[in-house]
Amino acid sequence: LRPLEIRKPSILVRELESKPVIVTHPDENIKDVARKLVENNINHIPVVDEKGVLQGIVTSWDIADAVAKGKTSLRDVMTRKVIIAREDEPVEVVARRIDKYDISGLPIVDSNNKVKGIITAEDISRLVGKKMDRGGESI
Amino acid sequence: LRPLEIRKPSILVRELESKPVIVTHPDENIKDVARKLVENNINHIPVVDEKGVLQGIVTSWDIADAVAKGKTSLRDVMTRKVIIAREDEPVEVVARRIDKYDISGLPIVDSNNKVKGIITAEDISRLVGKKMDRGGESI
Ligand SMILES: C[S@@+](CC[C@H](N)C(=O)[O-])C[C@H]1O[C@@H](n2cnc3c(N)ncnc32)[C@H](O)[C@@H]1O
Repeated sequence: LRPLEIRKPSILVRELESKPVIVTHPDENIKDVARKLVENNINHIPVVDEKGVLQGIVTSWDIADAVAKGKTSLRDVMTRKVIIAREDEPVEVVARRIDKYDISGLPIVDSNNKVKGIITAEDISRLVGKKMDRGGESI
Repeated sequence: LRPLEIRKPSILVRELESKPVIVTHPDENIKDVARKLVENNINHIPVVDEKGVLQGIVTSWDIADAVAKGKTSLRDVMTRKVIIAREDEPVEVVARRIDKYDISGLPIVDSNNKVKGIITAEDISRLVGKKMDRGGESI
């Protein structure tokens, strides 16, 4: 028998979610995607169809890949098998998924695969910084 | 008067540090930097001089910036004022620095500004995933 553990309720994905999420479409060209990444100061852009349903993901790493290999079409560099998160999942579970797949951000989708937001390793890392704040310490 | 708090000792940067760190030099061209990012499956490359002393940082986001603006020289896209981490800092402090400067990775340097490693938001996010493991829960 293990002693009863009192555990704080997990923080859920929806509490960290950054909105509005910036998206793109499969027929966008790479230069425009690069511009979107830079102008919005982000690294991950979900690729959606005209209904907002997830089709893939493109990241600044994929732009580096396009430069390295001389590719110019988004369809050639986007990732189609997307690892996703759901709004009601605990962030710990998402943190483990980020680690397992060596990725740094996941689109948050609803039950119809429509993109609702994005959650990144930076969003989760922020929690580690906040924990210490509660103790009243500062840099 | 506040009650005495028993605090677990902080995890230090050196415990998370990924080595060996991949570096580049200011005169490298952007295509070769992009190749290094892709081949090593990373997003951050410290730029060092011939002695290994930090000169700047280049990330896949900077490659996207180069594509967006048609820049081809690393010197034009690398960031020279680098936010760094030290091996003996607590990760909470680094997590707050990542948040404050809206960055995703920091070179770890010694007292001579020589690059020893790199720490990223993914490394810190991994801690959040591990915490739950200790409780014996799984996905
Ligand atoms: C494997 S990561 C390696 C670099 C680094 N760890 C990162 O997260 O950017 C790079 C590749 O992962 C893909 N990727 C990023 N987020 C993804 C996600 N949520 N699901 C599937 N693939 C993803 C990108 O499209 C890119 O091709």
